[in-house]
Amino acid sequence: MIVIMKPNAAPQSVNAVLSFVEKHGLQTHLSQGEEVTIIGIVGDKTKLPTENLVSYKDVDRIVPVTESYKLANRKFHPEPTTVQAGSASIGPGSLTIMAGPCAVETESQLVEIAQAVKEAGATILRGGAYKPRTSPYSFQGLEEEGLRYMKEAGKAFGLATICEVVSQEAIEAAVKYVDMIQIGARNMQNFILLKEAGRSGLPVLLKRGLCATIDEWLNAAEYIIAEGNPNVVLCERGIRTYETSTRNTLDLSAIPVLRERTHLPIIADPSHSTGSYRYVPPMAKAAVAAGADGLMVEVHNNPACALSDGPQSLTFKKFARLTSELKPLCALFGRE
Amino acid sequence: MIVIMKPNAAPQSVNAVLSFVEKHGLQTHLSQGEEVTIIGIVGDKTKLPTENLVSYKDVDRIVPVTESYKLANRKFHPEPTTVQAGSASIGPGSLTIMAGPCAVETESQLVEIAQAVKEAGATILRGGAYKPRTSPYSFQGLEEEGLRYMKEAGKAFGLATICEVVSQEAIEAAVKYVDMIQIGARNMQNFILLKEAGRSGLPVLLKRGLCATIDEWLNAAEYIIAEGNPNVVLCERGIRTYETSTRNTLDLSAIPVLRERTHLPIIADPSHSTGSYRYVPPMAKAAVAAGADGLMVEVHNNPACALSDGPQSLTFKKFARLTSELKPLCALFGRE
Amino acid sequence: MIVIMKPNAAPQSVNAVLSFVEKHGLQTHLSQGEEVTIIGIVGDKTKLPTENLVSYKDVDRIVPVTESYKLANRKFHPEPTTVQAGSASIGPGSLTIMAGPCAVETESQLVEIAQAVKEAGATILRGGAYKPRTSPYSFQGLEEEGLRYMKEAGKAFGLATICEVVSQEAIEAAVKYVDMIQIGARNMQNFILLKEAGRSGLPVLLKRGLCATIDEWLNAAEYIIAEGNPNVVLCERGIRTYETSTRNTLDLSAIPVLRERTHLPIIADPSHSTGSYRYVPPMAKAAVAAGADGLMVEVHNNPACALSDGPQSLTFKKFARLTSELKPLCALFGRE
Amino acid sequence: MIVIMKPNAAPQSVNAVLSFVEKHGLQTHLSQGEEVTIIGIVGDKTKLPTENLVSYKDVDRIVPVTESYKLANRKFHPEPTTVQAGSASIGPGSLTIMAGPCAVETESQLVEIAQAVKEAGATILRGGAYKPRTSPYSFQGLEEEGLRYMKEAGKAFGLATICEVVSQEAIEAAVKYVDMIQIGARNMQNFILLKEAGRSGLPVLLKRGLCATIDEWLNAAEYIIAEGNPNVVLCERGIRTYETSTRNTLDLSAIPVLRERTHLPIIADPSHSTGSYRYVPPMAKAAVAAGADGLMVEVHNNPACALSDGPQSLTFKKFARLTSELKPLCALFGRE
Repeated sequence: MIVIMKPNAAPQSVNAVLSFVEKHGLQTHLSQGEEVTIIGIVGDKTKLPTENLVSYKDVDRIVPVTESYKLANRKFHPEPTTVQAGSASIGPGSLTIMAGPCAVETESQLVEIAQAVKEAGATILRGGAYKPRTSPYSFQGLEEEGLRYMKEAGKAFGLATICEVVSQEAIEAAVKYVDMIQIGARNMQNFILLKEAGRSGLPVLLKRGLCATIDEWLNAAEYIIAEGNPNVVLCERGIRTYETSTRNTLDLSAIPVLRERTHLPIIADPSHSTGSYRYVPPMAKAAVAAGADGLMVEVHNNPACALSDGPQSLTFKKFARLTSELKPLCALFGRE
Repeated sequence: MIVIMKPNAAPQSVNAVLSFVEKHGLQTHLSQGEEVTIIGIVGDKTKLPTENLVSYKDVDRIVPVTESYKLANRKFHPEPTTVQAGSASIGPGSLTIMAGPCAVETESQLVEIAQAVKEAGATILRGGAYKPRTSPYSFQGLEEEGLRYMKEAGKAFGLATICEVVSQEAIEAAVKYVDMIQIGARNMQNFILLKEAGRSGLPVLLKRGLCATIDEWLNAAEYIIAEGNPNVVLCERGIRTYETSTRNTLDLSAIPVLRERTHLPIIADPSHSTGSYRYVPPMAKAAVAAGADGLMVEVHNNPACALSDGPQSLTFKKFARLTSELKPLCALFGRE
Repeated sequence: MIVIMKPNAAPQSVNAVLSFVEKHGLQTHLSQGEEVTIIGIVGDKTKLPTENLVSYKDVDRIVPVTESYKLANRKFHPEPTTVQAGSASIGPGSLTIMAGPCAVETESQLVEIAQAVKEAGATILRGGAYKPRTSPYSFQGLEEEGLRYMKEAGKAFGLATICEVVSQEAIEAAVKYVDMIQIGARNMQNFILLKEAGRSGLPVLLKRGLCATIDEWLNAAEYIIAEGNPNVVLCERGIRTYETSTRNTLDLSAIPVLRERTHLPIIADPSHSTGSYRYVPPMAKAAVAAGADGLMVEVHNNPACALSDGPQSLTFKKFARLTSELKPLCALFGRE
Repeated sequence: MIVIMKPNAAPQSVNAVLSFVEKHGLQTHLSQGEEVTIIGIVGDKTKLPTENLVSYKDVDRIVPVTESYKLANRKFHPEPTTVQAGSASIGPGSLTIMAGPCAVETESQLVEIAQAVKEAGATILRGGAYKPRTSPYSFQGLEEEGLRYMKEAGKAFGLATICEVVSQEAIEAAVKYVDMIQIGARNMQNFILLKEAGRSGLPVLLKRGLCATIDEWLNAAEYIIAEGNPNVVLCERGIRTYETSTRNTLDLSAIPVLRERTHLPIIADPSHSTGSYRYVPPMAKAAVAAGADGLMVEVHNNPACALSDGPQSLTFKKFARLTSELKPLCALFGRE
C-alpha cells in the first residue's frame, strides 16, 4: 500500500502518518520527491484501518498494491480450476452449455425442453424455481415443486441441473434436488447468501452484479470459497450502462481480464445480457471467441407464451442451429 | 399498454397479436397509421404474459402506460406520508437528522457519539451492527451486542435508533432493540429480505441500490408495503457512474422526481454518496434545498481511527457546525 | 408518433393536443382506454415541434415510432453497403484489417510498420497525424508531414491509408494524401466536422462517441450521408462505463444491433477499447464472431517507446500471430 | 509518478524501468517491499513517454501523483477567479443568472424574453444561434442573424449576452455581437474549437461533456487558458448515466470537488440536465446550496411552441417565482 501526500505536505503531517502506521506494527518506506512525498507500507494490512489514513492531514490518496481476494486469485493459484457439477465439468478444454427455461412452469414443459436441449448438446439443464422479480406482482416461481421437476427431468435425460437460489430456505431445498446452485446478479453482494452457498457443499455459479466491478465480483467469490467451497464458476451476464438498445451491455472484455486475475472458470449468458433472442447467437459465438468456458442460454418450447423473459428465449430449432454452429468454433479454440 | 408494430407489418401479424390479447380476456384498440400500426390494450394486465408479445412477428415494441407499483404510487395516494420511528417523525414540515458512526465499535464510543449528535440536533441515532463488506476479510460488525449498545445509547439521550439489517436473523434481533431498520444498497433487490422487513412491523429505511433506477426502487418499496407495512422511507445515497472523484454520484434530481411519483418520505445520505467528509456539508445543504425530508450523516468521535468508512465521517465539531448552518435553511424551506 | 395522456386527463387537455397537432397539418387517431387516452399522430413530423407537446397539460409522454435517420436506415436500404477505400473494400464477405501506429512518429518508423502489417495481411494502413489529446501538453501529431509519410508508405506497400481528421484544415490536407478519413470518438457529435467530412468526397470511418447511444451514432452517420457521401463505415471502440479494468467497455452487442438497423459496414477497435495489448487478440476474435466486417488494430515497432498509446499496441510478432489465428475464424464466418 | 511492479518482479525488469526513466533525464527512487517493488519518478514528466512504461515487463501499474492541468489548478492559483462578461461578473460573492431561450427564434420573441428575464433579475441573456442537433433534420439555428438579435436585445435591456459557438466561423461572428461564448457539451473535447475560443479574446463558458470526468473537463479548460485566455467559467449540465427519469444526471457533487481543484467560477444548468421545467426550481436551489456561482436557466415566452427544448423551459411567471425564491437563499450563502 502506498500513501501519497499532498504537494508541500508539512513534515509533521508526514510524521503523523508514519507513527500511525508503525504503531500498528507495519513498516514504512519514505520516498521524498521534489513535489510529492510518498510513503510505502509493508506488513499485515488486516491490522491497519487503512482507509482512515485518508483523514490524516495532507494525505492526498491511498493506493493499494495487492488485491483483497486471495483464494480466488490467480497469483496464488496459477493453474485453472475445473468445477464438477453432477455429470458435467466446467473448465479448460471444453465448452459447457447450460440451457433451459428462465422459469420452470410445468413438469411436461420441462421434460420437453430437457429433451430438446440434451439432443442439441447441452450438458446442464437450467430452470428457475425461485424467481427474483422487480415487481412483487410478477410470477415468483414454483419453488420446491419446480426443483423436483428439475431433478426428474435431469435424471430422465442424463443432464446435470442448476437452479437459482434466493434464500437459505431455497438452498436447503436445492441441496436435495439439483447439482449446482446459482447466485443471481441482484444477490451478488448478499453476503449472507454467499456464505450459505459456500457452506452448502454444492458448486456455485456466481453471476456478476448489475453494476459490479470485476474486483467486487472476485471478492464475492472469495466469500464463497472462504467457507471451504472452492467450486465457484463466474458468469458474465451484462452490466448496466446508458445504452438501452440491449437490456444490459455484455462485457466480454471481462473474460480475458478475469483469466489473468483468477483461476476460476468463466461462462457467459448471452440471453439475459441482450434481452433479445435475435442477439443470442452472435453474442454466444463472440463469448466463445473471447475465451469463455461455457454458455448459459435460455431455451423455451414456446417463447411467445413463456411466463418470464420470453423475448430472449430461443426456440428448439434456433438453439439446435446455434449449437451446431458452435461446434467448429469450439474445435478452433481447442474445446471438446 | 401499447403494442407498436413494425412498418408495413402484415395484416396476419396484426391479427395474431389481436387474438393473443383477446384470448386472455383483454380488449384491443387498433390504430392504423400510414407508416405504422398501433394496438392499444385495455384490461387486467396481470392476466397477460405481455413481455412475450415482443416475440410475435412484426412486433416492434411494447410501451407500458401505467407503473407496476400501486401502494407506493402518488397517483393513488396524493397525500404525503409521515413515518414515525420511535420518538422521531419523518415527513413534510420537518428535517429529520439521523447521525452516528458507520459501525458501532464500543459502548463508550457510541455513548460519546450519541451525546454529541443529540446536542447538535439529531433525533435518530444511526450505527451499523451488521456490516455488508466487499471483502470477507474486513470488519463485519458487532451484531447483537452492537444493537444492545444502540438501545442503551438511544435511551440515555432520548434518540430514536436505526440499524442496517442483512438477514432474517438480524431483523429478529433488531426488533428487540431498535426503532427502525435499514435495508442497504446492496440488498435493495434482495426480495426475501424486503418481505421479511415488511413483516417485521418496524419502519424501514430503504436505500437506493447502487445502480437501481427510480422505478426499480419504488418497486422494492412496494415489496415492503405489500406485506402490510406502509412505513417506508427512501434514502438517496448515490449511484454508480463513470466519475471517480466522488465514491458515487449523489443523484439529487431523484428527490423532485420521487416527489411526483410517490407519497413516501425521502432523505439523502451525503456521507456514503461522496465518500469524503469535505463534501458532506455542501451536499447536505443541497439535499435540503432539493426538498429532502431528512439527512443521514456519519459522525465519529475519531474519524482517523474508525473501523469503517473513516474518511467520510464528520467530527463532532464539523457536525455541530453543519446542523447550525442547516437551521436557517430549514426555516427558509418551511421545515421544523 | 404517439402521445400518451396522463390517467384521467381532462377532455379539454386531450382536445388541446388534438388541435395543436391538426393545426400543423398532421392527422390524429384517438384511442380512449379505461385508464389512459392515447393519440396517434400521422403525417410529416418535420412540420411539428413535437417535443413541445410534453409541455401540454395532462400529457404524460411522447413515444416516437420511427427513427430520425433515413439514409443510414436498413428499413429503406435493405442491402448491405460495401465501402471502397483506395484498393481496399469494407463490407460483407471480407474481413478488412486496418493496422498501424496510433501516431505517425517518423518516416522510417512508418515504413517499417507498413511493411510488417502488409506482410501479416492488413489492407489498410492507419496512423494518426492529428491527435486529439486530453491534455494540451501531450504530443499533438506531425500534421501534414505525417500525412505525407502515410501516402508514401501506403504506396510503397500497396496499402490503402486512413488518418483521423479533427478540423476542416485537416480534411483539406487529408484529401491530398490519404484514401479514407476517420472521425474520432470525441468529435462524433462535432456536426460541423461531420458535414465537412461528408463534403470531402472521401470515405469516412465514424467512431462511436464515448457515451453515444447507437441511435445518436446513426444520426451522426446521417449527417455525413446527407451531404451526398454514402461511404460511411461505423467503428465500435468501447463505451464509458463504471468498470475501470479496461479503458472502455467494448460493446460487441452493438454489432448485431447495428446490423438490424443499418446497411453500413461495421468494424471494431479492440486496441482503444481495452487499452491493453494483452486483451486485443481475444477481443479481436470476439468481434469477428459477433459479425464485424473489419478490425482496426494498433501495431508498433517498439510499443514501449511509442509517443502515444504504447500499452495497447501489438508488436509485429503478436500482430502476425493474431492475423494467422483470425484466418480459420474468417473461413468459418464466410469472410474472404 | 509512481511505477508499481508486479509481485516478485525480476531484478532485471526493475533495472529496465530504472534505466528507461533515467535515460530520459528523470530521477528514480526505489522502494522494495516484501511483496512489491515501487519506483518513484521525479523530474519533468513531459520528457517521458510515461504511459508506455506499462508495456515493460513486470510492470503492474503507473500511478500519477500530479494533475496534468496547471493554469486551471487551484494548487498554483489559490485565489478564486472572477470572470467579467460585459456588464456582468461571475465569481465569489454573487449569483449570476443567465437566462433566455434555448434557440433564438425571432427578434420580437427575444426582445420579449430579454425584458422578462431582466425584470426577474438575470444579468446575462442566453440564446442559441448555432444549435448542435442530434438529427440533421432538426432546426439548426438562425446563425449570424440570431447573434444580431442577441446584441440588440442585450443593449435594449442592459444585459450581457452569451451564445454557443460550434465552429471557427461562429466564433468570428460571435466576437462582433456577444459578450461571452459557450462551448457546448458535445464539443468539450473538440480541441481545435477550444484553442480558437482561447484566441477569441472573449470569456468562455465551458460546459461539461456528457461523459467527461472532472479531470478531463479541467484539461479542456486548460486548452483555452493555455492560449492566453484566463476567463473560463465551468458549467455543470448533467452527465449521462443509466437513469432515464431525468434527461441527464445533474452531478452537483462536482461543485465542491471543482472548488478544491480549480480557481475558476462554476455554474450549473438545471434545465438541460433535468430536461423538465418541473425539476428546474428544486435543482436550481440545490445548486446554489452546493456552492454554485451562477445558474443558466432556459426561459421561453411560450414553451409549448418553442422550436427547441420546450419541455424544459420556464414560463416568465415560473422564472420570476424562482428568482424571488432564490433571493433569501443567496443572502444565506453570502451572495449579493
